[in-house]
Order: sequence, then structure tokens, then C-alpha cells
Amino acid sequence: MYAIAIHGGAGTLPRAAMTPERDQAYRAGLAAALDAGYAVLDGRGTSLDAVTTAVRILEDDPLFNAGRGAVLTAGGIAELDASIMDGRTLAAGAVAGLRHVRNPIELARAVMEHSSHVMLIGGGAEEFALERGMAPVPNEYFHTETRRLQLQRALPGGGGPVNELSALGTVGAVALDQDGNLAAATSTGGMTAKRYGRVGDSPIIGAGTYADNAGCAVSATGHGEFFIRTVVAHDICARVAYAGATLAEAADAVVMGRLRQMGGEGGIIAVDARGNVVMPFNSEGMFRGARSADGRREIAIY
Amino acid sequence: MYAIAIHGGAGTLPRAAMTPERDQAYRAGLAAALDAGYAVLDGRGTSLDAVTTAVRILEDDPLFNAGRGAVLTAGGIAELDASIMDGRTLAAGAVAGLRHVRNPIELARAVMEHSSHVMLIGGGAEEFALERGMAPVPNEYFHTETRRLQLQRALPGGGGPVNELSALGTVGAVALDQDGNLAAATSTGGMTAKRYGRVGDSPIIGAGTYADNAGCAVSATGHGEFFIRTVVAHDICARVAYAGATLAEAADAVVMGRLRQMGGEGGIIAVDARGNVVMPFNSEGMFRGARSADGRREIAIY
Repeated sequence: MYAIAIHGGAGTLPRAAMTPERDQAYRAGLAAALDAGYAVLDGRGTSLDAVTTAVRILEDDPLFNAGRGAVLTAGGIAELDASIMDGRTLAAGAVAGLRHVRNPIELARAVMEHSSHVMLIGGGAEEFALERGMAPVPNEYFHTETRRLQLQRALPGGGGPVNELSALGTVGAVALDQDGNLAAATSTGGMTAKRYGRVGDSPIIGAGTYADNAGCAVSATGHGEFFIRTVVAHDICARVAYAGATLAEAADAVVMGRLRQMGGEGGIIAVDARGNVVMPFNSEGMFRGARSADGRREIAIY
Repeated sequence: MYAIAIHGGAGTLPRAAMTPERDQAYRAGLAAALDAGYAVLDGRGTSLDAVTTAVRILEDDPLFNAGRGAVLTAGGIAELDASIMDGRTLAAGAVAGLRHVRNPIELARAVMEHSSHVMLIGGGAEEFALERGMAPVPNEYFHTETRRLQLQRALPGGGGPVNELSALGTVGAVALDQDGNLAAATSTGGMTAKRYGRVGDSPIIGAGTYADNAGCAVSATGHGEFFIRTVVAHDICARVAYAGATLAEAADAVVMGRLRQMGGEGGIIAVDARGNVVMPFNSEGMFRGARSADGRREIAIY
């Protein structure tokens, strides 16, 4: 058994604003990432390579809030966060506050594989990227007209509120490979008009991303502050490992139970060592897809 | 029942290097923080105020690696991280990469109480401190002669290695107040000669700090990368909440079991809702103290 699941954020357009053209574009973007990640698994590649591939494609797609097309801070710049974890070794890498790294997930992976650290932030993280030979991109590389307009609306006097799409955007992937190893990866541009070097759950190991062969692999998307406070990704794995819950029970207890009670909007994708995939969300929708060796292939928004 | 425990880092001087004078100075510093925090609890103050008070005193004490007396980065500057969590509400605040905030734990608490965010980093976090009326201090405020010498030894050609004291230094506190509420706080200068904006476990909610009235309150100290990868603080609480473990069993399983197997040196302090206090460590020593309403008062190093 092998399987992959991806998400493109829990902040979907309200159904009323979703046109057939937009629907088709989002589904095409999800399908490209899902099938590329699945092809890695199908070719006996590792779950780490599969989630890296899928997330990189979503980062490059301007429709999703990560990499190119990331939302803009109050100062009008893109600041990117990402993390990745290897369920076999519990190795992990995380980066936050990037402004010039084209694919944050690749830098998170480099931190995991080529540094003695887990988390690097800001200018220091970018210095490490340069030393790893990653060519910097100007911050404008990430900007799109849609995000500029969203920022204008979100700023004081801009006529906000920002729609959900930009408020809860993230991308992520989880996978189980043919060797039985789990991996998870998450990447984001954070919240539109964010200030103060705010970091959400995406680069926090345990909150936005967690993978442990003994439990499961999780990537989260939603209102990051709530996800940090409840250590969402690790909590789901802990309920599987310690409480004897199935993956579906654990994920539902956290997403539909605890998070919803606190007012924490969003969702997660998760896969366990037997290839069970769950994708619960308590928001109106979540861009998502799953594909596994038993022939299942699903792409959905609401 | 009410209780407080504190730590001043798992990186103690090797026994061979500990003189009677040094031993006395460390114990005096620990006692000052422990008794001040206990006095808050004894006066019906909150566990949040108790841990803030104890950590602030340890930050101000140049002997410990947090606030004044923090270790220096490869560039010769102090970069500080801290976090705090309220077990009653699961509210949390965290800051990383500070250079001009006298008491990082107070900024972490301000983030928790006066922002909509949980984690702020770098210049943005310092901007928030200014807006909160916290007067900035020059980075030199944090520097001590001891840390300058340690940095010289740690840099290439300096004749290192750095002793354990600077490698695993952190301060922290956990408390249970008379209303039955738990809280945890942690603060650090990180690793001597660190580079690249490295962030350890101290400002990571779930790793270095966690508090949940339903489980326990934990503050960790040690080789931060291992503590992040195993989400140490939350994992201990999860074992109590889901696996039916006692606090002592859960803490031992993580610190003496899982962390030691991975090579993750360090320890934790924890208290549960019944006032049980544990302080396990797998390093040579851990500066620590505990005091509770049943008359227990303990200060220890090895």
C-alpha cells in the first residue's frame, strides 16, 4: 500500500464566489501536484520526495498561498514559512520569515538534511540558502495582482474584510511510500496584512507538520494560532499512538471537536502506516486531493 | 495544593569544574527565583504570574543562559527566545530572535495577552515590544565576560569545545496555583556560536513549553533540536492525558527513554493539577528547584 494526500488551504472561496472557471483552475492545480507526488511513490520513490514534489508544485502555482502567489504582509512583501518531517527518523526542518527563497519547502528540507539544526529564521535562514547554492529571487517574484488587491482591501480603509481564501491559505502534503515510511510537508505565505514577524503553525513541528512511522503523518491548514496552541499535528499522532484511536477518530476529535470548540477554523490531511487517509475540515471547504495504490483518486473543494 | 518548579538549564558545569563558590552562587540564584515565584502562589497569585516572576529573575541573573548573561552567537551578539503558556485557556505567547528586549519572557506574555498572534520573530517582535512601551536595551546589556570567553573558545581556532554549561543552557518555570491552574514558561539565549537564525525548542509551544490544566505544565532544557523533533512538552502531557501514565511515568518515558535513545541530552520540569512535581534529566546535571505547599523545598544541581 502507498498513498498521498495534499491540501491547498482551508480558506476556499465561498461557494457563491466560485465560478466554473475558477473551480476548474483550482482542481487542475491540485491534480498536477497530486499526480506528480503519486508518481514518485509509484516509482518506488520515498515519501519525503513525494511530499517535497507535491508541495513544490503548489508553491509554484500562483493560485495557492505559498511560494509564488503568497499573500502579502501589511508592508506589501511576501514572507514565507515551511516545514518538513521524515517519519522514519523523526528528522525535521523548518524555516520562517523568508523573502528571497523561491521554494521554501526545499530550504526546509536542506535544513533537515544539511544542517545540525531544525529551525532557521529570517536573514540567517536566507544566508544558509545562499550557502546551499540556492539562487535568491527578488521578493516581487512572489507577488500577484490578486494578492495586491487582497492586501489593499485588508488594510485600514480598504473596504475589507479579506475573504477566507487569503486568510486560511496554506499548502501541504502527506505520504506513505512502498517501504512503509511516512512524511509530511507544509508551506505558506501566512495571513494577508500580517505584521510583527508573525509566525503561524506551518513551520512549527508538532503544530502544522508532524510525521512518525509509529503514528501518522499530518499537515494542517487553518487559523494558525489555534493550531499552535493545541499542537494539532502531534496531538492527532499522540491520540493514535496512546489513546488507541483510529486515524479518523483522532483527526475528528481534534478538528471537529477541540479546534471547533475553541473557534479554530481549518482542517488537516493525514495518512497512517496502513495507508488510511483522512482529510477533515471544519471550514466551509478545503482544497484537497488524495490518491492511493488501491485506485482511489479524489480531488475536492467543499 | 500549590507548587512551583524552576530550572536553570541542563548544561551544568562538570562536577570537576564546580567550586564551592560557584556552587553557592548558582544555588543562591535558583533560590531567589524559586522563592519569589512561590511567594506569588502563596499570596494567592496566579501560576502565570509565578512563572513570569521566576523566569524574569533568572533572566536578570547573569549566571544563567537567558536575558543578561545569555550566550553569544557566532557574530558576537545575544539573540533571545522565550515562550509562555496558560494551562487554563491554552493561551500562549512566543518570541524568537530578540536583540533588544530586556526580559524576553515579558514580551512573550505581552504577545499572549495583547496580540492576536502566538509567535512573533525578529524585528517584528521588537516593533511590537516598542509599541507595548518596553524600553529597548543595547545588545551589550546582555553580554558578560564569561560568555565572551566561551564564544572565543567555541569559534574555529579557539581551542574549544565549549563546556556543557553554555551548550544546554535555558531557564524555565512551571507552577500550579491555588485555583488549580497550571502555567509554564521558558527563556534562553540558545547555543554558543549559533548561526543562521537558529531557533531551538524554547520558543516552540509543544516542544520547550506546554501547559494544559487537563494534563500538566512542562518546561524543557537541553539539545533543542531533539526536543523539537519529539515535541517533548506536549508529548509528556499527551501521555498523561491519553495513555493513563502518571506524570512521573510520562516524563521518564520521554526524557530517560525516547530522548536518550535518540541522543537528545537534557531534562524537563513538570507539575500536574494535583501538585506532583518531577524534574528528570539525562545529562550530568540540571540546575533546578521545587517548592510546594506541603513544605517541600529543594534546590539541586547534580
